[in-house]
Amino acid sequence: MKLDELDTPAALVDISRMERNIARMQARMDALGVTFRPHVKTTKCLDVVRAQLAAGAKGITVSTLKEAEAFFAAGVTDILYAVSIAPSKLPRAMALRQKGCDLKLVIDNVPAAVEIAKFASEQRESLEVWIEVDTDGHRSGITPEQDALLEVGRILHEGGIKVSGVMTHAGSSYELHSPEALSELAEQERAGCVRAAQRLRDAGIPCEAVSVGSTPTALSAAKLDDVTEVRAGVYVFFDLVMHNVGVCSIDDIALSVVATVIGHQPEKNWVILDSGWMAMSRDRGTSKQAHDFGYGLPCALDGTPLNGWVMSGANQEHGILSPANPQLANGSQDESLAARFPIGTKLRILPNHACATGAQFPEYHALSDDGETTVWSRFHGW
Amino acid sequence: MKLDELDTPAALVDISRMERNIARMQARMDALGVTFRPHVKTTKCLDVVRAQLAAGAKGITVSTLKEAEAFFAAGVTDILYAVSIAPSKLPRAMALRQKGCDLKLVIDNVPAAVEIAKFASEQRESLEVWIEVDTDGHRSGITPEQDALLEVGRILHEGGIKVSGVMTHAGSSYELHSPEALSELAEQERAGCVRAAQRLRDAGIPCEAVSVGSTPTALSAAKLDDVTEVRAGVYVFFDLVMHNVGVCSIDDIALSVVATVIGHQPEKNWVILDSGWMAMSRDRGTSKQAHDFGYGLPCALDGTPLNGWVMSGANQEHGILSPANPQLANGSQDESLAARFPIGTKLRILPNHACATGAQFPEYHALSDDGETTVWSRFHGW
Repeated sequence: MKLDELDTPAALVDISRMERNIARMQARMDALGVTFRPHVKTTKCLDVVRAQLAAGAKGITVSTLKEAEAFFAAGVTDILYAVSIAPSKLPRAMALRQKGCDLKLVIDNVPAAVEIAKFASEQRESLEVWIEVDTDGHRSGITPEQDALLEVGRILHEGGIKVSGVMTHAGSSYELHSPEALSELAEQERAGCVRAAQRLRDAGIPCEAVSVGSTPTALSAAKLDDVTEVRAGVYVFFDLVMHNVGVCSIDDIALSVVATVIGHQPEKNWVILDSGWMAMSRDRGTSKQAHDFGYGLPCALDGTPLNGWVMSGANQEHGILSPANPQLANGSQDESLAARFPIGTKLRILPNHACATGAQFPEYHALSDDGETTVWSRFHGW
Repeated sequence: MKLDELDTPAALVDISRMERNIARMQARMDALGVTFRPHVKTTKCLDVVRAQLAAGAKGITVSTLKEAEAFFAAGVTDILYAVSIAPSKLPRAMALRQKGCDLKLVIDNVPAAVEIAKFASEQRESLEVWIEVDTDGHRSGITPEQDALLEVGRILHEGGIKVSGVMTHAGSSYELHSPEALSELAEQERAGCVRAAQRLRDAGIPCEAVSVGSTPTALSAAKLDDVTEVRAGVYVFFDLVMHNVGVCSIDDIALSVVATVIGHQPEKNWVILDSGWMAMSRDRGTSKQAHDFGYGLPCALDGTPLNGWVMSGANQEHGILSPANPQLANGSQDESLAARFPIGTKLRILPNHACATGAQFPEYHALSDDGETTVWSRFHGW
């Protein structure tokens, strides 16, 4: 189907941009001497992940067991489940291992280590676990110098569990916006994770893998000595949040929502679209950044940004486009609004957060340079 | 499956609460002498809609043609598509009509009226259209006194289109929180829509239906003279936004997300959950209301609210639970955190916005009073 024939709203992937983003990250990882394990939570789409693996990625990172099951069924075996596992999910994880999936689990606390060792012992099977390290205080993990790090390592190791790595995610990188600060955080992430691995090794626990990453730190690290692999997800599409962080330009953003003009409120300078928060998601990630893009940055259907306009509001299936400059919000442009955006006009809206926007759709429409689109399915749920 | 056996995250529907919410709304509509047309965009779930129809609802409201197609396939014929239709969607709407669906479309502007009349003429088929009326300035529609109202009516009527109703949605009711203000807005919504219908009738355009509604105004209207029907969606589950508006209590909220404790960060007083924004949605609808519930209000698995706690943060698959009172955020409770919320503990989180949270899940788990759950599927996409 041609781009201008798509029913709206539609989630559009610009294949050229996506390929460029994949090549950029892989080249960077190759230059830094580490392997790259993309986080597939961003797309949950086999077509995208195949492109990442074809470019040189080794294995994948997942955020749910459903992702692990779906990608293992498609032939991917090296999988890191990067969320501390709830004990009740252990049978589901074990079932994947028993089918031949090289699934690595993650935990960050003693009670979980006890549960895992007990479960594996009862099942008379082993499991492979990486310990989550906290290198920036933004969420989960054990800090490199905490006693709990060695305690968790020992409980697992002595319980017959293979402690084959440490992993960290410096998610606070999303809050930064200068190359210097990002580079510093990347070094903090690297050093903390390497230190945790060293402490485990010194205690006799093998810990081969040292896995770090977030899109901003992966693209900002000056060196990655003693790191074995990097993980990142959103780089594959990028988005307006990443643009504000400073790691991509607007024309790197590979995901957009195709929307249709369905009405006007001229006295308010509003153009009404058939795409609201159900399409864009409720993510307002740019609201606390230097440039607030509302619910998204509108572009013409050919991808040219409509600078000066913003998707300022969203109901479930209605979007509101208005001038970004409040001084223009009431006034001179009234007369030209319906002429500039006639009913039926199709636009592309660049999203705040590609992971959240993609999740609103059962499929992407992948756009080739010749204007043809192909359906790439994605899955949701757990 | 028993409640405590559900894999998490899971979207849980408390059937008793849902039935009570349905009965309350229907009794109110019966007393006001109007029919009730529930908006199914909230649930996109046949089991819920059957319960609404069984209680006395007449027809349904949809926000997408996919909803219309899915519910028509399940036997519902009287359907109002309550978003101004994009011209490119007309063939899809016509296909439904040709299969016997009593589908009513909505528009609010002259160019759309011209397109519809032209399309129907080319197809040699008729269509049925309701005109959207703007009674509170919050989004779309033609105000009751605008010339465009009669112009749209005439273009459709003379083009062979049946103009069988007017509809309005006073969505600004979500921004109110006093019974008096809600009751006033309900009257404004009623009066404006009735006035628009009268103007059309005076101009010789039949306009039988006068359709109004939003959950807050439907529950606040003192009278609905000359209105024929009311629409509302979120009342069926309610949520924290509706609680803050003042039209439900916490124990009316029928939707929650079941989550599992997977970690702790004691020095920050954080409990880490396996349910983040992918489960709750990014909707932060209570952030501008008098009581900000963060990403949700945690409850014990039996539904008892954990007052004093809030889901204060969310990443894609991680939620952060912390004390609602910042003075407690660092301090005395450190020691008891892991004891109070042991790893593996399951909780229910009440959502800000039931429409947005439900959309994150492929299915609900419907909970009976005996603790058993049943899968109720829902659909997404367009």
